[in-house]
Amino acid sequence: MADLINKQILLKTRPVGEPKESDFVLVETPTPEPSEGEILSRTVYLSLDPYMRGRISAGESYAASVELNSVIVGGTVSQVIKSNHPQFQVGDFVLNSNGWQTYGVSKGETLRKIDPSQAPLSYSLGVLGMPGFTAYAALLDVGQPKEGETVVVSAASGAVGAVAGQIAKIKGARVVGIVGSDEKRDYIVKELGFNAGINRKTQELYPALKEAAPNGIDVYFDNTAGVILETVLQQINLGARIPLVGLISQYNATSSPPGPNLMPLLIKRALIKGFLVSDYQHRFDDFLRDVSGWLHSGEIKYKEDVVLSLENAPRAFIGLLRGENFGKLIVKVSTEENGD
Amino acid sequence: MADLINKQILLKTRPVGEPKESDFVLVETPTPEPSEGEILSRTVYLSLDPYMRGRISAGESYAASVELNSVIVGGTVSQVIKSNHPQFQVGDFVLNSNGWQTYGVSKGETLRKIDPSQAPLSYSLGVLGMPGFTAYAALLDVGQPKEGETVVVSAASGAVGAVAGQIAKIKGARVVGIVGSDEKRDYIVKELGFNAGINRKTQELYPALKEAAPNGIDVYFDNTAGVILETVLQQINLGARIPLVGLISQYNATSSPPGPNLMPLLIKRALIKGFLVSDYQHRFDDFLRDVSGWLHSGEIKYKEDVVLSLENAPRAFIGLLRGENFGKLIVKVSTEENGD
Repeated sequence: MADLINKQILLKTRPVGEPKESDFVLVETPTPEPSEGEILSRTVYLSLDPYMRGRISAGESYAASVELNSVIVGGTVSQVIKSNHPQFQVGDFVLNSNGWQTYGVSKGETLRKIDPSQAPLSYSLGVLGMPGFTAYAALLDVGQPKEGETVVVSAASGAVGAVAGQIAKIKGARVVGIVGSDEKRDYIVKELGFNAGINRKTQELYPALKEAAPNGIDVYFDNTAGVILETVLQQINLGARIPLVGLISQYNATSSPPGPNLMPLLIKRALIKGFLVSDYQHRFDDFLRDVSGWLHSGEIKYKEDVVLSLENAPRAFIGLLRGENFGKLIVKVSTEENGD
Repeated sequence: MADLINKQILLKTRPVGEPKESDFVLVETPTPEPSEGEILSRTVYLSLDPYMRGRISAGESYAASVELNSVIVGGTVSQVIKSNHPQFQVGDFVLNSNGWQTYGVSKGETLRKIDPSQAPLSYSLGVLGMPGFTAYAALLDVGQPKEGETVVVSAASGAVGAVAGQIAKIKGARVVGIVGSDEKRDYIVKELGFNAGINRKTQELYPALKEAAPNGIDVYFDNTAGVILETVLQQINLGARIPLVGLISQYNATSSPPGPNLMPLLIKRALIKGFLVSDYQHRFDDFLRDVSGWLHSGEIKYKEDVVLSLENAPRAFIGLLRGENFGKLIVKVSTEENGD
């Protein structure tokens, strides 16, 4: 497929602190040929997620770093344009990990087919994909909210937080969301049905939480760590559970900031547990059944923030780490074709 | 019993930072009479434990603060000298909580009789009492060490740590203890059979741990928090478990110090869980059976640091918070009588 130009965004320099657009570079290369058992696909949607900040750092994480001058990793919805694998036909849509490029070659066995009649294609990167699954498993398996308990969610209008909060609501909890703008606060309360919302940029967190969670906090779904975690710890109830799902507050930090004093964990016999969704594959079918059902019944609402064109991915990603997106951030890389 | 003079140590002023002897005052008062259902007992042994530092502070903890001008709380082994309760006879030994005083009146139903033929009386305040039970339940129920895993214990020659490390050894783990002197390091390695010991005052912790725990850390039995916890977190394995049993490093702090950065919890999907032994009463019989057995078989060794006379309790307690004791700190308040 040497006639197809593959646009790729490579990691040019490792960001120090907040990434800059100059840390990324767009290149054009020939599109590779798929070998036996492989497929070539065109990226339709690229997911942008906070975890990618860790991948473009040199430090240890739960997965290998992206090498310099390599394509940045990322989940994609892709359409098959050439198949050397019997299970995939040209035109099929697949959940893939092409990363930040317009075309990619993948081994067939690593792919999952997506049925576009079930839900919008891009949902497989959000509410019905990794972020939604993270929300589901971390909330239910680690947080374990009981009816009447209070659940606090940080980054609550984001791809993970919004789903976590709505599932907590479905399970009968009082749900408080922490967000970064009044618009997002209105959204989680008025659209998503959270019991209360806090704008961390304009409200003083400790008293705002006291007011929003008058009976104390039983579950804290932590996407951020930092000052929010520290403040929440001062208001947890006996036996509180804190799934640590993300540390957005420090992804751009140039040195490792201190964490919260842990005395409240002892006093309240509470737990903090690091969460990574890949440990919960055995729950994927439950997730897909439950969350698909809640989407269809309207109990879960879902909002996307779609950026057009791969070229805009770096700027959108930088904004994501600043909390500038509103809803699940997705890049529309190309148009899906109906095959007619 | 107005003819008996009761010596009491009262909290005179709330300590700021490290307690001073002048924060305590010794008074002599008449000994009260037991009412119906109560017993009067003479304190034979008083236990001194780090948790008492929290009780003499004003801040929130898992139990109420000691009021100013009140007797400091504390577990005791006491001998009944007058009984208005049918289950207790004069001369019986009981596990009690007379606190820092020579006599105390207690409701009979709050007491447990101790059989002095089973083990030395004072063991009920240590290896066969609250500290030993803490070690047992926090290690086995939260830490859950598996054979061949590496367990690190801080304050490892102390009343809790020494028992935790030896139980981990019995369960087939590689055990590393962190202590505050060469003498204590020799003790835990040569006497207690720990695989390695680290003197945190003379050794650099990170490389010393790397060497002592070359396969990483699976369980960290945390008595201290602070810099030890922070360093351990950098060397934990996937799925590590950290029972947070004490925060000795900060009990004398005048303001709440920051804690460790929690990124390693996420990367390693590890957990920290606050532990309080009173939540594990259902395990007490298991504990007493197992640890008594290991004591008799010689698999668990036990060392006491006995201070004579109630007057010396404040100084001994101050030393305990500095790590100056060597073994379980006990005050011998009076001599037990055989009743003959």
